[in-house]
Amino acid sequence: MKIVIAPDSFKETMSAPTVAATIAKACREVWPDCECVEVPMADGGEGTTESLVAALDGELVSVDAVDALGRPRKAHYGWIPSQKLAVMEVAETIGIEHISPQERNPRVANTAGVGMMLRDILKRNPQKIIVGLGGSATNDGGWGMLHELGLRLINSAEELIEPQALALAKAAAVSQNKIPTAFSKVEILLASDVSNPLSGGKGATAVFGPQKGVKADEISLFDTALSNWGRIIDTWCGKQVSQTPSAGAAGGLGAAFLGFLGAKTQPGVQVVIENLNLEEKLVGADLVFTGEGGMDFQTKFGKTPWGVMETARKHGIPTIAFAGKIGEGIERLYENGFAAIVPTVRVVTDLETALKNAQQSLYESAKMTCQILNVRKN
Amino acid sequence: MKIVIAPDSFKETMSAPTVAATIAKACREVWPDCECVEVPMADGGEGTTESLVAALDGELVSVDAVDALGRPRKAHYGWIPSQKLAVMEVAETIGIEHISPQERNPRVANTAGVGMMLRDILKRNPQKIIVGLGGSATNDGGWGMLHELGLRLINSAEELIEPQALALAKAAAVSQNKIPTAFSKVEILLASDVSNPLSGGKGATAVFGPQKGVKADEISLFDTALSNWGRIIDTWCGKQVSQTPSAGAAGGLGAAFLGFLGAKTQPGVQVVIENLNLEEKLVGADLVFTGEGGMDFQTKFGKTPWGVMETARKHGIPTIAFAGKIGEGIERLYENGFAAIVPTVRVVTDLETALKNAQQSLYESAKMTCQILNVRKN
Repeated sequence: MKIVIAPDSFKETMSAPTVAATIAKACREVWPDCECVEVPMADGGEGTTESLVAALDGELVSVDAVDALGRPRKAHYGWIPSQKLAVMEVAETIGIEHISPQERNPRVANTAGVGMMLRDILKRNPQKIIVGLGGSATNDGGWGMLHELGLRLINSAEELIEPQALALAKAAAVSQNKIPTAFSKVEILLASDVSNPLSGGKGATAVFGPQKGVKADEISLFDTALSNWGRIIDTWCGKQVSQTPSAGAAGGLGAAFLGFLGAKTQPGVQVVIENLNLEEKLVGADLVFTGEGGMDFQTKFGKTPWGVMETARKHGIPTIAFAGKIGEGIERLYENGFAAIVPTVRVVTDLETALKNAQQSLYESAKMTCQILNVRKN
Repeated sequence: MKIVIAPDSFKETMSAPTVAATIAKACREVWPDCECVEVPMADGGEGTTESLVAALDGELVSVDAVDALGRPRKAHYGWIPSQKLAVMEVAETIGIEHISPQERNPRVANTAGVGMMLRDILKRNPQKIIVGLGGSATNDGGWGMLHELGLRLINSAEELIEPQALALAKAAAVSQNKIPTAFSKVEILLASDVSNPLSGGKGATAVFGPQKGVKADEISLFDTALSNWGRIIDTWCGKQVSQTPSAGAAGGLGAAFLGFLGAKTQPGVQVVIENLNLEEKLVGADLVFTGEGGMDFQTKFGKTPWGVMETARKHGIPTIAFAGKIGEGIERLYENGFAAIVPTVRVVTDLETALKNAQQSLYESAKMTCQILNVRKN
């Protein structure tokens, strides 16, 4: 019996490798001879670097960068020498989790830190860079990153534009492009599930601005700046990049990657699935276990368990998911979906205790699931 | 596919028939063609009458009786005409749940109410009476019941003994036995899991007295009375009845049944299993579902799920149990036991909410279990 165990992390309690190992332990206890293939997963968000580095024998590299407010910050990216592949998450530098709610300031916040990571990666002569977009504190359309890499913009009076979000409103044209040409030889893949354009009613500012500190009466101010920036990007690359889905990811950082760095986009979980060779690992498997801390109807929209299940389904392999919190609408996840979804909460308990016992509960739920499966095996 | 669904009640939330119907609904949703045989169970305690009446096409009969303190009380017993079988629970009259903690008084409490039920049953000319022992508020060794049926005791001065617990200390002999001789033709079966003798260190008073209101410094007083009563019983029937396991059940009521009414004893769940013909219903079954509101290591000691599982095991049929509360030591229930135990709590929640959602949670857990079983079926 071969079981592929490909879960995401359980946020706040267990990393994906811990989740996978816990499920595997339960499987081996019920079926001592089973083959468990542990594939800790991610969906392009937090944990993506860790997941790919672990699976592909890579290393974690530390780089001196800055956070969204320009404060020094050690950031990490993954480097897989055998493939000359770099894996980075933009949230490592410009992540909103590094900025307290009181400090959030979209006028100041910019993406220069991402540029610093890219500069460092470039020294290694990469063939490919996977970029996890998302979780940013910025709304600068990636202008800070491009400025850091060597791009300069001017206004109609030919004065240089500052690398800040609102300054883009007065930008008229690109005046200088010293972005290293080496980037043109690198395949850059954005792992993103955001389908918003750079600006407009469904744009970065209108949809994600408020959570970054854009006040209700400033939305049009910031949106106008990104709209003007979109015009410059589109002119520069000769394509309607600014209206592309995912241009609005990470406060418009997507647009900068697409327009100036030749990046391509793929749903986050697909990036992970392909780079982990999940399909190859599924060959001959009887069963797939996956899971995530929380699951609800939104799991369908790009979350790890759904992506894993879809991949397994292609090969006719049933998938059972574990979840700490089962939310609304999970019945929709059964249509053409999971064989079963098993909660890991098992007793009347408060949240604090549940989080404390998360690993033991997962273990017990996984063991119970194997025991039930065993009934039919006999 | 044939599934036998034989659960006990989930105390405080669902009767056994509701539990069985809820599990059956989940089964039919996953396997529209499955044959579900619903066998609501009990273990000789609360719900035993209801369970047998429902399964054997009986009726509930109401009788004017009294509670342990002599207050009028309508009590119910079951009558199955086809078998001339009566099913009664002594707690219907002398149950401790009818007496508030403040009112509990083992000096006054007696078992006359049980005698009244028996008198009424006798009018129907029964072949067999099943008596669920347990949950009594009395410690009178069944003296009240026998007095009600026509027995009289005297002291050494040949004065009549009152039908009260402590009066037994001065009893010297039986002076008159007007217990209807018709009882000698009736098979009386005590459903009891108590293995305590009438008196002594492991006797009725020492072990169960305190919960009925016997104060710590009165234990030897009450125990001496029962010990003297045991001597009279043993002399009367020419056997060591008072030291028999289960003589101490229901405050010594067991001894009265064994010594004066020719009763026999059987573990409660076995009484139910045999009278419901569970074994016959198991023929050809692929799977058994059982369950109870709470399960822990004590489930092994005479609780419904364990009895059901043992019966299914004899026929090589796997049993899966559902429980609202999974307590300590359930791992012991897997050794030679359940194939799986599935909790019905599925989310972080407080007890009140959990009880309110008990049926929906049970349904979801049962459906999930069938879905997991289905994985192997495919």
